[in-house]
Amino acid sequence: MSYAAPIKDMLFVMQELAGLEDMAGLPGFEEAGLETAQAVLEESSKLCGEVLAPLNVEGDRNPSTWKDGKVTASPGFADAFRQFAAGGWQGVQHPAEYEGQGLPKLIGTACIEMLNASNLAFALCPLLTDGAIEALLTAGSEEQKQTYVPRLISGNWTGTMNLTEPQAGSDLALVRTRAEPQGDGSYRIFGTKIFITWGEHDMADNIVHLVLARTPDAPEGVKGISLFVVPKFLVHADGSLGERNDVHCVSIEHKLGIKASPTAVLQFGDHGGAIGHLIGEENRGLEYMFIMMNAARFAVGMQGVAISDRAYQKAAAYAKERVQSRPVDGSSKQAVSIIHHPDVRRMLSTMRALTEGSRALAYVAAAHSDIAHHHADQAKRAEHLAIYEYLVPIVKGWSTELSVDVTSLGVQVHGGMGFIEETGAAQYYRDARILPIYEGTTAIQANDLVGRKTLRDGGAVAKALLADIAQTVEALKQHKGAAFASMQKHLSRGHDALQTTVAFVVANAKSDPNAVFAGSVAYLKLAGIVLGGWQMARAMLAAQAKLDNDPSFYGAKIATAQFFAEHVLPQAVALEASIVSTKDGEGMLALREDQF
Amino acid sequence: MSYAAPIKDMLFVMQELAGLEDMAGLPGFEEAGLETAQAVLEESSKLCGEVLAPLNVEGDRNPSTWKDGKVTASPGFADAFRQFAAGGWQGVQHPAEYEGQGLPKLIGTACIEMLNASNLAFALCPLLTDGAIEALLTAGSEEQKQTYVPRLISGNWTGTMNLTEPQAGSDLALVRTRAEPQGDGSYRIFGTKIFITWGEHDMADNIVHLVLARTPDAPEGVKGISLFVVPKFLVHADGSLGERNDVHCVSIEHKLGIKASPTAVLQFGDHGGAIGHLIGEENRGLEYMFIMMNAARFAVGMQGVAISDRAYQKAAAYAKERVQSRPVDGSSKQAVSIIHHPDVRRMLSTMRALTEGSRALAYVAAAHSDIAHHHADQAKRAEHLAIYEYLVPIVKGWSTELSVDVTSLGVQVHGGMGFIEETGAAQYYRDARILPIYEGTTAIQANDLVGRKTLRDGGAVAKALLADIAQTVEALKQHKGAAFASMQKHLSRGHDALQTTVAFVVANAKSDPNAVFAGSVAYLKLAGIVLGGWQMARAMLAAQAKLDNDPSFYGAKIATAQFFAEHVLPQAVALEASIVSTKDGEGMLALREDQF
Repeated sequence: MSYAAPIKDMLFVMQELAGLEDMAGLPGFEEAGLETAQAVLEESSKLCGEVLAPLNVEGDRNPSTWKDGKVTASPGFADAFRQFAAGGWQGVQHPAEYEGQGLPKLIGTACIEMLNASNLAFALCPLLTDGAIEALLTAGSEEQKQTYVPRLISGNWTGTMNLTEPQAGSDLALVRTRAEPQGDGSYRIFGTKIFITWGEHDMADNIVHLVLARTPDAPEGVKGISLFVVPKFLVHADGSLGERNDVHCVSIEHKLGIKASPTAVLQFGDHGGAIGHLIGEENRGLEYMFIMMNAARFAVGMQGVAISDRAYQKAAAYAKERVQSRPVDGSSKQAVSIIHHPDVRRMLSTMRALTEGSRALAYVAAAHSDIAHHHADQAKRAEHLAIYEYLVPIVKGWSTELSVDVTSLGVQVHGGMGFIEETGAAQYYRDARILPIYEGTTAIQANDLVGRKTLRDGGAVAKALLADIAQTVEALKQHKGAAFASMQKHLSRGHDALQTTVAFVVANAKSDPNAVFAGSVAYLKLAGIVLGGWQMARAMLAAQAKLDNDPSFYGAKIATAQFFAEHVLPQAVALEASIVSTKDGEGMLALREDQF
Repeated sequence: MSYAAPIKDMLFVMQELAGLEDMAGLPGFEEAGLETAQAVLEESSKLCGEVLAPLNVEGDRNPSTWKDGKVTASPGFADAFRQFAAGGWQGVQHPAEYEGQGLPKLIGTACIEMLNASNLAFALCPLLTDGAIEALLTAGSEEQKQTYVPRLISGNWTGTMNLTEPQAGSDLALVRTRAEPQGDGSYRIFGTKIFITWGEHDMADNIVHLVLARTPDAPEGVKGISLFVVPKFLVHADGSLGERNDVHCVSIEHKLGIKASPTAVLQFGDHGGAIGHLIGEENRGLEYMFIMMNAARFAVGMQGVAISDRAYQKAAAYAKERVQSRPVDGSSKQAVSIIHHPDVRRMLSTMRALTEGSRALAYVAAAHSDIAHHHADQAKRAEHLAIYEYLVPIVKGWSTELSVDVTSLGVQVHGGMGFIEETGAAQYYRDARILPIYEGTTAIQANDLVGRKTLRDGGAVAKALLADIAQTVEALKQHKGAAFASMQKHLSRGHDALQTTVAFVVANAKSDPNAVFAGSVAYLKLAGIVLGGWQMARAMLAAQAKLDNDPSFYGAKIATAQFFAEHVLPQAVALEASIVSTKDGEGMLALREDQF
C-alpha cells in the first residue's frame, strides 16, 4: 500500500518539458530553480509517503462519521492534518505576504500530485482550502484577506466551496440560497447546500464557507449570484473566534469512494440566519467563482494524474511478484512473474504512458500559469494565460477520464485479487470515479473548451499549439529508429485529426450547435491525447539527447513515448471520425427522447 | 431500481438476426418457435422484474454473512431462490430426460440475460449450477447423472466449480489439491480452494462441488488434473442425504461488488478427507472443465450484456427526469431534462448501442450453439460449432470489457448523484468490474481466441465470417440515406481492419509470439466491435424492411445502428494500428522488468 513519489520523473518533466529553469527568471521566483524544487519535492515526499499514504486505506475502511451535527474525521486524519499544516504545505503556492511560501505553481503542482497520490480523500481538504484562498485573494477586501488568508494558509482554519443545491448542480442559474442584507454590512444566509466536501469536520478550529447566494433584488439566472464568506464560528476583529454561526451539517453522504472525506449537506439559517459577508461586488459571484474554479479544476486534473500513478505503482509491484503461467515465447519451462506476459506488459505500459502523458501536460500547463501571472511583459502574460486557460479543461477532463481507465486496468492486473477489497486496487478504482464528475463534469469541461476556449478566439490558441506540434514533428524527423518513426507518424496523424476537429468546431458551432456539442467530449479527449502525445514526443527528444548519461532512465522515457505513439495516439483518428460524422438530426441525435 | 426486460428488443434479435424460426426446424426443438419464446420470456420477465430486481440493492447493502462455517444468504434470497426453482428456471436449456425443459440455448440465453440484469449476484448461483450440470452431462457416469442432475435442475441442490487455489489462478498447472483413492472407488480430497462462488449458503439442501485435484501418480502440470464430485452432504444410493462431508467454508471474501454472492474459501479434508468420486477418466479433468467452461464463459458474457442494459435503463430514466440547464441550440429559455443535452444523448446512445451490439452477437452465437448440438447433419454441426467456439471468447471478453465502460457511463449520466451509493448506479459499476476477470480474464480469452480459435485452423473461421461481413456490406449499398452510407463505410473499414489483424496473427504467431500476444486483447476487442457492428448492420437492414409496420421501434434500430457505425466502429482502425505496430523487443515490450 506504500507510495514512492516519482521525484526523478517529476523533475525530468519540470526541467525538460516545463522550463523549470525559466521560472527562476520570473520576478519573485529568483530562488525557484532546480535546487529548490528538488529540496521541496524530497521534503514533501516524506510527509506523503510516511504519514499520508498509510492512512489512505484506513480512511477507506473507517470513513468519517456524523453524529448530532458533528463530523469526526477518520482515525489519524486530524493528527496528519496538523503535521501537514505545521510543515507549511498549505501555503506552497500562495503569496509570501499572507505567509505563504510564494513558490511557482509548477513546484506546487508536483506537491499536489504527491498529496493526492498518497491520500486522495485527505488531499481534498487542502484542495478546497486552496480554492477559498484563491477566491479571497481574487475578490476579497484587504480586511477579509488579512482576517482569513493567513489562518487558512497556516492550517488553523480550512475552507469550502458551497455551490451545489439539490436542484442546482451543473446549472448554477438555479441557485436559490438567499442572502438578506442586515443594514450593518452583514447578510443573513438561508438555504441548503449539498455535496460540500469537508463541509464539516474536527481537524481545524474554524471552517470558512464560501457560499453562492442571491440578494433580494438580484436578477434571475447566473447574473444574480453573489459570493459570501460564512465562517462556522464568527470571527472577531482581532481574529479570535466568537459564536457558532447558524450553519449546520445535517448529514453526510454514503459514497462509492473518497470515503474519508465527509461530503456534507449544509443547512444555512434554520435558526435565524447564518451571518455572512459579501465578497467583492454583488452579482459577480459566478465570475469570482470561475477564477477560483480554474484553479480547482486544474487541481482535480492533478488528482487524476496522481491516482493513476498510485494505481500504476501498485499494479507494477504486484506484477513483479505474482508468479503464474509459463511465457508464451517458450523462454522458460517454469511459471514466471506475470510482468513477463505480454498482455500484462501492455496493461502496465498503458497505465504508465497515460500517467506520464497526463502529468507532462499538466506540469506544462502549470508553467504557463506561472508565466501568465509573473512575467514582466504584459503581452507575454496574456499569451501564456490564453494557453493555460485552453489547457485547464483538457487537464481536468482528460486526466480524470483516463484515471478511471487506468485504475480499472490496475484492478485487472491483479486478477481476482483486484476485486477483493483488502488488496487495495479496488479503492483507487472507486476513488477515481468521482474525478470526471466534481468541479464540473467532463461535459462541462468540454463545453468550456468549445465555447470559451475555442470559439471565442476563433480557434487561435488551438492553432498556435498545432503549429508548435508541427515543429516537434519536424524535429522527430531528424532522428532514426523505430521509436522516432512511430512517434513522427502517429503524432503527425494526431495533429491532422486535431486540426480538422478544431476547424469543424469553429465552422459549425453557430449553424449546428447540437452537432458540435455532441462531439465536444470527443474533442476534449482528442486534444488530450494529441497534446499529451506531443509532450511524450518532446520527452523522447530530450531523453535522446541525454541517453548516454543514464541509459536505463532515458531509455525508458523513449520506450514509453513509443508506446504512447503506437497504442494511445491512434485513437485520435477514431475520435475525429466520431466528431465530424455528427450532423443535427442524424446519427447521434436521431433518437427521440421517447425512443430511449 | 426497477428493471423491465426488453422483450421486444430480445425477440427482434432472436427473429431477425439469430434465426429463431430455424430453431423449430431442429430435431427436438419442434415447439420452440416464436410463440414459445414469447411465452417463456414474458413469464421469466415477471419473476425477474417483480421478485429478483427489488432484491438486487438489498443484497448489496446486506451481503451474505459467514459465521462458524455457515453462510447465510442476503435477506430474501433463499425465498427468491425457492420461487426460481419452483418455476423450473434452472432447467430451461437442460435436457427433458433429466427433467429440464429442453429449450434451445437461444431462448435460454434471453432468460439468462433477464436473470442477470435483475440481480447479478443472485444469478451467479444458477450460473454455477448450470456449469456443474454441463460437466456431469459431459463426463459423468449414468449413475452420477441420475443422482445429481435432476436434483440440480429442480433447485433442491446447487452446484459449484472448484478450480482456483491461492497459487493457481489463471494457471491451473499449479493446482495442488490431492485426491487419494480409497480402494472402494471413492477418493479422499485434501486441499484449499479459493474464490468459490456460492461455495457455501443456506438456499438449498445440498451443494455439489466439482473439484479439480491430482491423484497420487498423476503427471505434472495440466495433464495430471482430474475432476471429482464432492457433495457437501454425502448422498445415499436412493438420493437421500447422509453425513456432512469434510469440506468446510473457512471464510468468505469482502468484495468490491456482487456482494450478495458469497465467495468462499473451501477447506477440503481437514478432518480426515472429503469423500469424492471421479468424474469421467483420470487426468482428463481439464478437458471436461473446458467444455463446461465454454458454457460458463458464454454466460458471463451475457452478464456483461445484462448489467449494461440495467445500467442503461436506469440512466435513461434519470436523464428524462432530471432538469438542468438550457439547451445549447437555444430552443428553450428554461432548463430542460438532461436527455436533451447532446453529451448526455451521446452517453446514453453509447450505452444503448454497445448493449444492443453485444446482445445481438451473443444471441447469434447461442443460435450457432443450438445448430451445432442439434442439427441432423454432422457437417453442419461441425461448421456451426467452429463458429460458436470462435465467438465464445469474444462474447465473454468484449461484452464484459464494455460493461465496465457502460456502467461507468451510467454513473456519469447521474452526475454527482451517481457517486452516492443510495442512487444505485454505482452498484452496477462495482458489480460489473468482476466480469472481465472471472471465468478467465480478458487476456485468457484473448489467448484462447489467438491460439485455439485462430491459429489452429489457420484463421479459417475468421475468414468465413469476414466473407459474410463483406456480403452485408454489399447489401448495405442497395440502400440510400446517411445511416446506410455511414454503416457501409465504417463496417467496410472494420472488415479490412479485422482482415489485416487476422492475417498478422496467423503470419507472426510462430516467429514473434510476444508481438502477437501483446496485441491479443486488442484483436479480441476489434473482433467484438466489427462482429457486433456487423450484427447492427444486419439489424438495420431488417428494420428497414419492416419500417412501415412500426416506425418508432424500427426507426430506433436504424438510428442506433448508425450511432454504432459512427461512434463505435471507427475504433477498429485504432485497434488495428495498435496491433500491427508491435514487434518483439520494440514498443510494447521495450521496457525491461526493472524499468517498470
